[in-house]
Amino acid sequence: MRVVTFGELMLRLAPPGYERFAQTGSFNAAYGGGEANVAVSLAGFGAEASFVTKLPAHEIGQAAVNSLRRYGVDTRYIARGGSRVGIYYLEKGASQRPSKVIYDRAHSAIAEAGPADFDWDAILDGADWFHFTGITPALSEAAASLCADACKTAKAKGLTVSCDLNYRKNLWTREKAGQVMGALMPQVDVCIANEEDAADVFGIHAVGSDVIQGAIRREGYQAVARTLAERFGLSQVAITLRESLSANDNNWAAMLYDGTTCYFSKTYPVHIVDRVGGGDSFGAGLIYGALTGLDAQSRLEFAVAASCLKHSIEGDFNLVTAEEVRRLARGDASGRVQR
Amino acid sequence: MRVVTFGELMLRLAPPGYERFAQTGSFNAAYGGGEANVAVSLAGFGAEASFVTKLPAHEIGQAAVNSLRRYGVDTRYIARGGSRVGIYYLEKGASQRPSKVIYDRAHSAIAEAGPADFDWDAILDGADWFHFTGITPALSEAAASLCADACKTAKAKGLTVSCDLNYRKNLWTREKAGQVMGALMPQVDVCIANEEDAADVFGIHAVGSDVIQGAIRREGYQAVARTLAERFGLSQVAITLRESLSANDNNWAAMLYDGTTCYFSKTYPVHIVDRVGGGDSFGAGLIYGALTGLDAQSRLEFAVAASCLKHSIEGDFNLVTAEEVRRLARGDASGRVQR
Amino acid sequence: MRVVTFGELMLRLAPPGYERFAQTGSFNAAYGGGEANVAVSLAGFGAEASFVTKLPAHEIGQAAVNSLRRYGVDTRYIARGGSRVGIYYLEKGASQRPSKVIYDRAHSAIAEAGPADFDWDAILDGADWFHFTGITPALSEAAASLCADACKTAKAKGLTVSCDLNYRKNLWTREKAGQVMGALMPQVDVCIANEEDAADVFGIHAVGSDVIQGAIRREGYQAVARTLAERFGLSQVAITLRESLSANDNNWAAMLYDGTTCYFSKTYPVHIVDRVGGGDSFGAGLIYGALTGLDAQSRLEFAVAASCLKHSIEGDFNLVTAEEVRRLARGDASGRVQR
Amino acid sequence: MRVVTFGELMLRLAPPGYERFAQTGSFNAAYGGGEANVAVSLAGFGAEASFVTKLPAHEIGQAAVNSLRRYGVDTRYIARGGSRVGIYYLEKGASQRPSKVIYDRAHSAIAEAGPADFDWDAILDGADWFHFTGITPALSEAAASLCADACKTAKAKGLTVSCDLNYRKNLWTREKAGQVMGALMPQVDVCIANEEDAADVFGIHAVGSDVIQGAIRREGYQAVARTLAERFGLSQVAITLRESLSANDNNWAAMLYDGTTCYFSKTYPVHIVDRVGGGDSFGAGLIYGALTGLDAQSRLEFAVAASCLKHSIEGDFNLVTAEEVRRLARGDASGRVQR
Amino acid sequence: MRVVTFGELMLRLAPPGYERFAQTGSFNAAYGGGEANVAVSLAGFGAEASFVTKLPAHEIGQAAVNSLRRYGVDTRYIARGGSRVGIYYLEKGASQRPSKVIYDRAHSAIAEAGPADFDWDAILDGADWFHFTGITPALSEAAASLCADACKTAKAKGLTVSCDLNYRKNLWTREKAGQVMGALMPQVDVCIANEEDAADVFGIHAVGSDVIQGAIRREGYQAVARTLAERFGLSQVAITLRESLSANDNNWAAMLYDGTTCYFSKTYPVHIVDRVGGGDSFGAGLIYGALTGLDAQSRLEFAVAASCLKHSIEGDFNLVTAEEVRRLARGDASGRVQR
Amino acid sequence: MRVVTFGELMLRLAPPGYERFAQTGSFNAAYGGGEANVAVSLAGFGAEASFVTKLPAHEIGQAAVNSLRRYGVDTRYIARGGSRVGIYYLEKGASQRPSKVIYDRAHSAIAEAGPADFDWDAILDGADWFHFTGITPALSEAAASLCADACKTAKAKGLTVSCDLNYRKNLWTREKAGQVMGALMPQVDVCIANEEDAADVFGIHAVGSDVIQGAIRREGYQAVARTLAERFGLSQVAITLRESLSANDNNWAAMLYDGTTCYFSKTYPVHIVDRVGGGDSFGAGLIYGALTGLDAQSRLEFAVAASCLKHSIEGDFNLVTAEEVRRLARGDASGRVQR
Repeated sequence: MRVVTFGELMLRLAPPGYERFAQTGSFNAAYGGGEANVAVSLAGFGAEASFVTKLPAHEIGQAAVNSLRRYGVDTRYIARGGSRVGIYYLEKGASQRPSKVIYDRAHSAIAEAGPADFDWDAILDGADWFHFTGITPALSEAAASLCADACKTAKAKGLTVSCDLNYRKNLWTREKAGQVMGALMPQVDVCIANEEDAADVFGIHAVGSDVIQGAIRREGYQAVARTLAERFGLSQVAITLRESLSANDNNWAAMLYDGTTCYFSKTYPVHIVDRVGGGDSFGAGLIYGALTGLDAQSRLEFAVAASCLKHSIEGDFNLVTAEEVRRLARGDASGRVQR
Repeated sequence: MRVVTFGELMLRLAPPGYERFAQTGSFNAAYGGGEANVAVSLAGFGAEASFVTKLPAHEIGQAAVNSLRRYGVDTRYIARGGSRVGIYYLEKGASQRPSKVIYDRAHSAIAEAGPADFDWDAILDGADWFHFTGITPALSEAAASLCADACKTAKAKGLTVSCDLNYRKNLWTREKAGQVMGALMPQVDVCIANEEDAADVFGIHAVGSDVIQGAIRREGYQAVARTLAERFGLSQVAITLRESLSANDNNWAAMLYDGTTCYFSKTYPVHIVDRVGGGDSFGAGLIYGALTGLDAQSRLEFAVAASCLKHSIEGDFNLVTAEEVRRLARGDASGRVQR
Repeated sequence: MRVVTFGELMLRLAPPGYERFAQTGSFNAAYGGGEANVAVSLAGFGAEASFVTKLPAHEIGQAAVNSLRRYGVDTRYIARGGSRVGIYYLEKGASQRPSKVIYDRAHSAIAEAGPADFDWDAILDGADWFHFTGITPALSEAAASLCADACKTAKAKGLTVSCDLNYRKNLWTREKAGQVMGALMPQVDVCIANEEDAADVFGIHAVGSDVIQGAIRREGYQAVARTLAERFGLSQVAITLRESLSANDNNWAAMLYDGTTCYFSKTYPVHIVDRVGGGDSFGAGLIYGALTGLDAQSRLEFAVAASCLKHSIEGDFNLVTAEEVRRLARGDASGRVQR
Repeated sequence: MRVVTFGELMLRLAPPGYERFAQTGSFNAAYGGGEANVAVSLAGFGAEASFVTKLPAHEIGQAAVNSLRRYGVDTRYIARGGSRVGIYYLEKGASQRPSKVIYDRAHSAIAEAGPADFDWDAILDGADWFHFTGITPALSEAAASLCADACKTAKAKGLTVSCDLNYRKNLWTREKAGQVMGALMPQVDVCIANEEDAADVFGIHAVGSDVIQGAIRREGYQAVARTLAERFGLSQVAITLRESLSANDNNWAAMLYDGTTCYFSKTYPVHIVDRVGGGDSFGAGLIYGALTGLDAQSRLEFAVAASCLKHSIEGDFNLVTAEEVRRLARGDASGRVQR
Repeated sequence: MRVVTFGELMLRLAPPGYERFAQTGSFNAAYGGGEANVAVSLAGFGAEASFVTKLPAHEIGQAAVNSLRRYGVDTRYIARGGSRVGIYYLEKGASQRPSKVIYDRAHSAIAEAGPADFDWDAILDGADWFHFTGITPALSEAAASLCADACKTAKAKGLTVSCDLNYRKNLWTREKAGQVMGALMPQVDVCIANEEDAADVFGIHAVGSDVIQGAIRREGYQAVARTLAERFGLSQVAITLRESLSANDNNWAAMLYDGTTCYFSKTYPVHIVDRVGGGDSFGAGLIYGALTGLDAQSRLEFAVAASCLKHSIEGDFNLVTAEEVRRLARGDASGRVQR
Repeated sequence: MRVVTFGELMLRLAPPGYERFAQTGSFNAAYGGGEANVAVSLAGFGAEASFVTKLPAHEIGQAAVNSLRRYGVDTRYIARGGSRVGIYYLEKGASQRPSKVIYDRAHSAIAEAGPADFDWDAILDGADWFHFTGITPALSEAAASLCADACKTAKAKGLTVSCDLNYRKNLWTREKAGQVMGALMPQVDVCIANEEDAADVFGIHAVGSDVIQGAIRREGYQAVARTLAERFGLSQVAITLRESLSANDNNWAAMLYDGTTCYFSKTYPVHIVDRVGGGDSFGAGLIYGALTGLDAQSRLEFAVAASCLKHSIEGDFNLVTAEEVRRLARGDASGRVQR
């Protein structure tokens, strides 16, 4: 069971606790990025996970590599070179004050990487699954082209391909996103999205939803999933459903459409420690569930329980075991001390 | 748009996190005080704000000055000399355990300052607004006299004068407070108070309120505001309304009486990071709203949204921009990540 | 008013904040253990409290001793020698992620102590109360035997003896626990337990309770208390009632049976800072209430208020004064700042 | 073997590491003061040590008491009341940048204490030695009077009395110091001083010394010791000899005059971790040496080795055992790892 | 006395203590850059100092501005816009392990700034001195052009212009540096350099020096200074002389050529806390000395003493007062505690 | 180039900075152990390094595994099970105060491991070198037996076997060590020792050395090396030579005997950040030098330079690259900043 993910790994700089950028005299330093987060989750579940990117040869690049090795991710295929590790600054919100992300990722090594950096045939050899997100092709034309290469090779080798739409308005326009992602989707089998991604990228709106107010209309998302599946010939579409009560408290659930039926998960009221990477941990859960043969509802519940736990963990990475996820999915949400 | 505030700036020593005084091996060091907090808020909104006090010439005094310069407050008129920076120790409460403040502010430089330290005519030149709180005259007879000088000069020069009653039982008795504040009020245009201040200082009780139990009776506060306005010829009276559910969770709202009508704000359920300075941030919002020409309801909503956000920020200072306040006042309280 | 408690004092190693074991680069170091926690509580209330254990002669052993001296516990009777300070690793849970405790306490000095280490006649001289928990006899055969010696001496000298059942499945089986504890109970006057202890140790089940689901059936616990009291001739049985909503939020209450009547306390919704030692702080409150002559309901409310406050304090020790407990027991749960 | 010391215990606020006051956002919080430091040293050596002072009843006062209890000092005779815990701010120097101390100790509880706070007859009962420093009488007229009472009672009860001159120019003038200390010296048996104290307090100069340049002239100090001994009928005079090469590196030695002979210790080149309390740790070593019957040279070497070690320890307190001191005094200064 | 400096202000990310990049989980965050460091030094001495740069409008840009305001630097003329705050990562060396700097400054706001961002006529109005370093023109063609504009305006308005050569091999080649700097030098009055800059930028070698081995040949530097002065018509040339014994210990001195005579300073053995910004603090001292009318030797000694102290201070900024510098320059290098 | 090392990996708990055990409220948590340290060094140099041990299946065991993966060590062959991760407490010394190590390693998983845990044939397959230290066989009879199995298999498969004598007096007596190690030495090719090991384990004394006084007699060590080589048929013997000037400053060198000649390295004066693991980093350098074909003198200089750098790095692990070592070995010991 081997999964390959491809994308950017950034340095994440976050003031301690609830300090604002204006106050802080230090940053907690961690590393993260959509596809790397998925790889760490999968390694934690016990799967073989390879993460592919390009990072500078210098010490900060090495520290980024180490952050993955530490949690068991295979880093053999990370190309080394280029000049920058992309950065994102993260200020944690509280109560009515939102968390704030400032990106400083332009000109990163992966954004400037080229086809010579990756031998997809070798990288994907023996793998079962290839995963990327909509962030990777948004990094640069070159990165989009690398994504296309990877997808094609993956399909040719019979891998399942999943994509988390993950629209980032700072990286490209809706128009550009729709065009590039539209060209990649034919290679994709499993599509993951949050409530807004399908609308942002493909103009597919969930009628009646209003994200800011937190009202989630489940019916609308079923229609979105069906439309996505039909338009791109997807075998599965998953949508995460976040209700944002405040920066501290969210409700978290998801739905999965398997081409026939729409399954809805339990809803978890989460008291947030760190919500960055929540969607990625969901994707990882879904992939793991699929690879371990869970049925649609179980797969969905595993993925939602995994991402529910992510919200309780500092950093982008979802450092939980499959057994911890199963315990929650089985219903033990009491948080009682385990001795 | 220039505002001058006058009062004490203290060193604030708080154990990290939820540590009790008995446990701690370190203190987070910040600076704060009612009028300085207002100045920092205003500078953050983009107004020109001057803070006036006296601080020792030594390095701790300088660090106090620096804490204001950092956030853009004009510190030109801070007199230097005297021997002590006043201190307050702050232990953050949680759940049913209340936060605890121990004051060690007697004999501070400002408490022992005299008329030679401040040239009010120069200080207030070109200013639009003068603000102080009931803490300043409570520091010493000399400080009360300085306050009176400042108020008189301000009125003579046509400034608007605002006062936050801010009764502190450790500094003076109710009787003394009533007498001294009563003498200052004729110069005051805008009076700010919490639910208990009017009763403590002037014996004006809100019938039916019971602070400890958290039951807030809005009608009673209307009567209090009207009585205050009439007794002292005030053009505006604002009262903050805090419902203390626990040390972690409060409801926060306010009312504003403009001589004719009582306006009530939205109520925010706040999950507290640090509630010290909550009232000051309200006052600053009210002043900023007035100076930027907002109508009464908008001014009130701006002030309440500003102080709502303050509860999510470590330290006395409300480090938010006017735009952040407006976004909340417009209704976006979901705390969703901003990228 | 002098209380003697006997048990193990462990080094507690906890990652800062909500970090997982897998992430951390440091541990907050504190000391704790059921009976030591009771002693610290009592010393904080103003009682004379002696804690008896054995600790290595080296510097870590000394640091353990110092952690008690700091809070006023009498450490004269702590034997020094042996090779290990027992350790427990504690990872703080959040939301649906439970806290996790890993014990590394085998072969500790107290587990390997013998009768030559303690002169119970001298230790208990002039004392009013002896307290231990079900953890101490579970440490080793030798420790169980020391417990028996202490209980016998205590009874012979006319002390009240209390025992918190505190079943630890890592230390012994239910069968072994039932047998050893059953032999000690005849010397016990006051028995303290949580919802599960009576079932685990003595097979006495509260019909209809289901801990995981958080449904607490009060009627069932009354029957448990009566059965315990009758079987072992106890004068008092207290049971703590925790409803675990999540790792952050619990409801907390207790009941006390005095041989005639079952008293139920108020229920506190607690927002948790650190729940380890919650039961111990309840026991200490009950002992203090008894020694200061409170009636059954007041004693219970004091004990529950004390342990409610414990949940807001980092570390095993309940660092509160009797006056702070009384204020909460009297009804001030608003958490308003005290200046 | 019981020693009583009397003086002030201050809160010590020091920025972490080498941060300057202007930079810091936190203070390491510890407690210290000449006579308390001596008491902690003695308790660490295994002697019974009581420290006498007055501290506020509030939590910061309690934390100060706890800081002594933790290290085994008897705090029974500490009076509680008054309003302030004295403070000193400490910025650690490096290389050519000197350490800086800012005192904020006026109006502390002990400075405002009176005769009703201390029952010297009870306090000194059963004690062998009484120790104070020149700081205590400098705090206030009242404190000087308390010192005189303590000295008189101590002499009447047959205790040995020691005094460390410890001149503090911020507390009093040389003239005032000379007058007050001159009146106390007749009760003193053992006088401790640094190179400058005798000159500052009594105008007794060591010919040829030049402290700033680090040139230490041993002959001159012999004359100082003899003059002191003769003028005040002292049985012993000890002078510490510090050669300040930089804020990081000092040479440290001392001499002891026993009425007949001048003994000189070894000189230690110390690489400084924290030099505050260096003199106090010397005094404690001298007292311990005397009480355990060491001859003059051994006593001196013990005291110098103890204070040499102090320079390697953070905080005012010399947290070493007598065995550690003996090992160094015996000649093992290699700093090799002990396993 | 007003000085204007122009250049880049970077975010400085340094692991705590001696941690390597590979180990760290956090970065101390400060801001620094050659010309900003000079401005902070001058403000600390009491001069009016304006720093000119461009910084993004976002919160990290604001934090950079605040870092200067805090220490009294005038930030009015900082243009806001662009996308990046330049970054440098700093790993502190120890013993034989060198400190390591990784730059991530390409595409910063100032590197991409243009003439519309700065109105040099207004900025330099009323100023006495303009200072820049060889880093600024190395940032980009546009920055070099801005530098040229500033120099021309400065000369036209009669300011003294100083330049620290500060060659950075990562930013440009020796050839390019020589060409660009050569074109700027005619506007420069005072040139500052370290032992290698003149050779790197202008090919002027100090015969016989060998930096790696630490052997400093004073004669050679005199020739370098004379050559520089003659070639570019400079009124003063200053060269700092660092002898690197290890990452912890350096010898530090400098020479000043005033067109006639070469003055050499005292040499300070420095035990390093943080040596970044050492050269900048020397430059600031020299400017301050000139503006306050010190003679050549005194000016040099002031500058060297200032930069000696810098080595004892964490961060890029030399947070010392003129009085502290004077005390050291007068000869008090003992590092004795100042109370 | 693949090296396998076998031993214990302990949790290392060290108070921050120079805090003593008695003071600390936290421990820096790292992992270390002689053979693991060698593996990390080798991985850092770019070699393939496998570390073999047994660690509990729980989270602390996993964190130990992760600490190696992070730095690129192959952890495939680590057996999981048992109950304890061994611990050592480390207090860092300063000046004359020695560092202190308290071991708490009895009953660790590896001490209680058995032959079923390791398939040496598979583990050593394809490896070039096997390394262990005298600590591993000292852990338990079972561990000694595992060591013997490993050595035999290694020899049978044609690997080079190296052993660092590393005598630990807390684990076994000199007699026992001599007997067990003597039986293992016939399989050993390369023996590494410090100045005392040969005497402690085999009674081979270096005439004239006196470690405490720091006088190192090189001649004596030559004789020791020759005797060791002859007695056990070793091809190489290396001895590290540490001169302990203080806890902060050591001189560091080594010698290598290749059966014919004794080579002596350069001596480095090291200013210590952390000296634990110094010997291990030397061993790793020697192995790497041998595997990369360096001649005897170069191998020795590489090893000494590597271990010199180790003293500047926090933690047990020598986190340096081969290029960094080479730079120092080539003679650049100036510690100048690298940009």
